[in-house]
Amino acid sequence: MKVYTAEIELQTRGEVDIIDITQRVQDVVSESGVRNGIAVVFAVGSTCAVTTMEYEPGLKKDIPAALERLFPKGIEYEHHKTWGDYNGHSHVRASFLKADYTIPVVDSKLPLGTWQQLVFIELDTRPRRRRVIVQVMGE
Amino acid sequence: MKVYTAEIELQTRGEVDIIDITQRVQDVVSESGVRNGIAVVFAVGSTCAVTTMEYEPGLKKDIPAALERLFPKGIEYEHHKTWGDYNGHSHVRASFLKADYTIPVVDSKLPLGTWQQLVFIELDTRPRRRRVIVQVMGE
Amino acid sequence: MKVYTAEIELQTRGEVDIIDITQRVQDVVSESGVRNGIAVVFAVGSTCAVTTMEYEPGLKKDIPAALERLFPKGIEYEHHKTWGDYNGHSHVRASFLKADYTIPVVDSKLPLGTWQQLVFIELDTRPRRRRVIVQVMGE
Repeated sequence: MKVYTAEIELQTRGEVDIIDITQRVQDVVSESGVRNGIAVVFAVGSTCAVTTMEYEPGLKKDIPAALERLFPKGIEYEHHKTWGDYNGHSHVRASFLKADYTIPVVDSKLPLGTWQQLVFIELDTRPRRRRVIVQVMGE
Repeated sequence: MKVYTAEIELQTRGEVDIIDITQRVQDVVSESGVRNGIAVVFAVGSTCAVTTMEYEPGLKKDIPAALERLFPKGIEYEHHKTWGDYNGHSHVRASFLKADYTIPVVDSKLPLGTWQQLVFIELDTRPRRRRVIVQVMGE
Repeated sequence: MKVYTAEIELQTRGEVDIIDITQRVQDVVSESGVRNGIAVVFAVGSTCAVTTMEYEPGLKKDIPAALERLFPKGIEYEHHKTWGDYNGHSHVRASFLKADYTIPVVDSKLPLGTWQQLVFIELDTRPRRRRVIVQVMGE
């Protein structure tokens, strides 16, 4: 049984940048030598998230539109009274979407659907340098 | 330490079909022989999700109602311009709910609450044949 | 490879109580002796959730406000016809937020961001005694 840790570094372009990380996570799995097990993908930070989607231009607009409809940027957030950084909506969106994703590794592969990609979502209002930790465990 | 992989096949009835998979995941855990560890439940595809709920007829209507309120079927989705399959809302719902669920295995059991079941949610607009991968790891 | 199971007990103050459990999960990781692996945090019950957030007073109001905006307490829920306990919104909120969280363990630590805490969210309408299972696996 192995545990293999890697970090993916990302430079994001700010709100709402959606980045396909499938190949980079698959590369970590390949490097790990794990044939069967799991990959835990965890984004460090309280204004970002990890999920899956069909990575195509339409949905890259539909997901930000849904985030704005559900958690509008323009309404009042108490968070602003704490820090004055005006990213209260970014934080709330991140807590709902969550920063973790766990996926099986089967025969050295991530068994994603053909139109299902792993994505990192930048929810903060400005470009950020981000770290995504990938923990691969298995045999 | 063992890694045990199984696949659950489901035939869904289309939008929004919610299927209790608790017993089937528990059966996989039992077959695996793992006494203490974890079970990772992962639905293949970008228009479906896995979560927990009290599986009773009322909530089986309340969850679809909430999905329709938050991500209405009738509004415009850019996704439709890519494929013309009119399931943009299905995709966005799936990215928010996510297709993964990880649950401990303790004394060969899933330690769910009495009124807490593991469910697969079909979010696509049509009946689908689905695969749910269950990865059990532990000792 | 080790598997180490612990339970965190919480007494909540009812709707919407958000409790920082970071230190308690870190304590379990330390007790486990696992240096590299994962921690699976799972809340037992269908009216509660686990996620991460910057644990500060503003967001402790913003998250409940978002929950009320998206899943209002005052609208009709079919769940009420089943049980008459008027917590349909609690259940729906819990299914969307989910009760599981998986986080890597790296050098015996949870690699959370500086302003990123692990939290338990009580979504039920009344104070509850709660169990959170922490499963640590690794070497």
